[in-house]
Amino acid sequence: MSASLVALTDLEIETFFPDEGVKTLERVLGECRVVDCEGLSGEKWREFLAQTNPKVLVAGWKTPRLPDDTLERLCPNLDYLCYLTGSVRKVVSRDLIEQGLRVSNWGSSISRTVAECALLLALACGRRLAYWNEQMHNQGGWKDAATVTHSLFGRRVGIHGYGNIARFLISLLKPFSEDIVVYSDAVPSDVFKNEGVECVDSLEELFRGRDVVFELEALTPERKGIVDESLLRSISNGGIFVNVARGELVDEPALLRVAQEGRLQVGLDVYAVEPLPKDHPFRGCYGIVMLPHIAGPTTDRRRDAGDHALRNLERYMDGAKIESPVTLEVFDRST
Amino acid sequence: MSASLVALTDLEIETFFPDEGVKTLERVLGECRVVDCEGLSGEKWREFLAQTNPKVLVAGWKTPRLPDDTLERLCPNLDYLCYLTGSVRKVVSRDLIEQGLRVSNWGSSISRTVAECALLLALACGRRLAYWNEQMHNQGGWKDAATVTHSLFGRRVGIHGYGNIARFLISLLKPFSEDIVVYSDAVPSDVFKNEGVECVDSLEELFRGRDVVFELEALTPERKGIVDESLLRSISNGGIFVNVARGELVDEPALLRVAQEGRLQVGLDVYAVEPLPKDHPFRGCYGIVMLPHIAGPTTDRRRDAGDHALRNLERYMDGAKIESPVTLEVFDRST
Repeated sequence: MSASLVALTDLEIETFFPDEGVKTLERVLGECRVVDCEGLSGEKWREFLAQTNPKVLVAGWKTPRLPDDTLERLCPNLDYLCYLTGSVRKVVSRDLIEQGLRVSNWGSSISRTVAECALLLALACGRRLAYWNEQMHNQGGWKDAATVTHSLFGRRVGIHGYGNIARFLISLLKPFSEDIVVYSDAVPSDVFKNEGVECVDSLEELFRGRDVVFELEALTPERKGIVDESLLRSISNGGIFVNVARGELVDEPALLRVAQEGRLQVGLDVYAVEPLPKDHPFRGCYGIVMLPHIAGPTTDRRRDAGDHALRNLERYMDGAKIESPVTLEVFDRST
Repeated sequence: MSASLVALTDLEIETFFPDEGVKTLERVLGECRVVDCEGLSGEKWREFLAQTNPKVLVAGWKTPRLPDDTLERLCPNLDYLCYLTGSVRKVVSRDLIEQGLRVSNWGSSISRTVAECALLLALACGRRLAYWNEQMHNQGGWKDAATVTHSLFGRRVGIHGYGNIARFLISLLKPFSEDIVVYSDAVPSDVFKNEGVECVDSLEELFRGRDVVFELEALTPERKGIVDESLLRSISNGGIFVNVARGELVDEPALLRVAQEGRLQVGLDVYAVEPLPKDHPFRGCYGIVMLPHIAGPTTDRRRDAGDHALRNLERYMDGAKIESPVTLEVFDRST
């Protein structure tokens, strides 16, 4: 029996704790058992959990799901799941949180790389990078007199959603444009006032006549498909739509239509179905700049999520409150 | 005979003077003759010049070259060539400037869009956009555990060249990194001091161990091929090299080798030979993000070059000095 179990792959340890690897964790946790999760079977996983019965579990992308009887039978000692990455639903059930398991994930430690990716996609849309990449690499192309490009300088920007990613994005956009407005139905208007951010009163107002719209809102059942065809068509002609939030927020067939018409340039990191099916009609539409859900964090900034986890483990060991805990409310909103 | 000749295409007038078109020019120049240069023959062009014998000529990309006997025979009145775009060598000979013709071009009015494109290329290299674009659009690809990406946050940046583009680029990079150094053999070191920019003493020092290097230097005969294989290989492993200046500054075969090895991610807007030959070996190397020399200005920011030209025409009409004149010295440095 060990007080802590670190259930990660070697690659996860290397990239989340690049300076000293497991030693960094041991310094905070004391003695801990380390399990390489690469290819670990469900049966072996149960065995490890029962043998170790840890108080603290450090988990990552490859950690197998915690069985439903984890607290009742396998690990009655387990009190804190420190999940290095984002989507806790993959590793833990709502039930276990209800039974009292404390959980944290990477919280907002990765927000700035997502904001960076949103900026990249908008700039790439302006220069038609998907089109030019195809032309330059595969079609032997070169520009001609009809080539059209757009800058971000001086453009009217709208942002749907207002969390840490939006805050970072605004700081990255400031050198380009002073005309930035935000809308989120989840944020009280005095927050915008206090932070000096201009907000509008509806999603319609956010999209209408804007040149560049960023989708950053959290997905809830009510927001499924909320970005519909009429909103997309209300963006200024030749404008840009970027989504680094969740694919299901958008009516994807409508998005494809406006992209195919050349009505909008589109930049996507997320899709309603992931991995994006091989025969998905987005593929081959060069008005869409596409990335495979890699907005955040980049490999070199996983260390930020590692630092965030370490700080939480230190807090936990000191008997202090963990930061950005995944409460039942947060769990229900998560995807 | 008219005091001014505007020799542009309709598209040039629309994009450089989007608000009121030719009227904007007429307000400054008074009555002027407007010639559509689209497909204009050399013979017709001589005829127009001789008939109009203007004092001021407003020219653009499609304006035919001024014949060598322009001042001696065709247009003895011609005193000022206001060229809306960049490469004056295409439209005027050194001889005509020596004979006293005043010339201006877009100067630094387009610098910020070039800086924006440099930032785009660096961000795109970090996320392997050429590779992912090919994968997502043409190969049915999706990320896997081995996917590597890089951010600009916290990276060591080097900039070769220090003019207006570099100044704008530094302002765009500031939210990402505080560690930015510059080198240019053409700029006295007190300029860097006065502007609070950190400079290094050699090109070797600029490249060695940097994560991201931007090539922004002006091309001179001495600088041809100055970015050689050893410099490229001295950038940190997995680093980024971006060129938005001139292709001939770089040893292109060496650049291709390091890109093919995956040693560096490369972003290019310029090439030694343009248009890039259809069978050029850069094509198909997806470690290189490629654009077809469209860094600046974007279509929507041609208005900045139009505004710059208008201000120069106003100055000229008022008897004041024109800004950023193309002197013999500037002409000799231009490409």
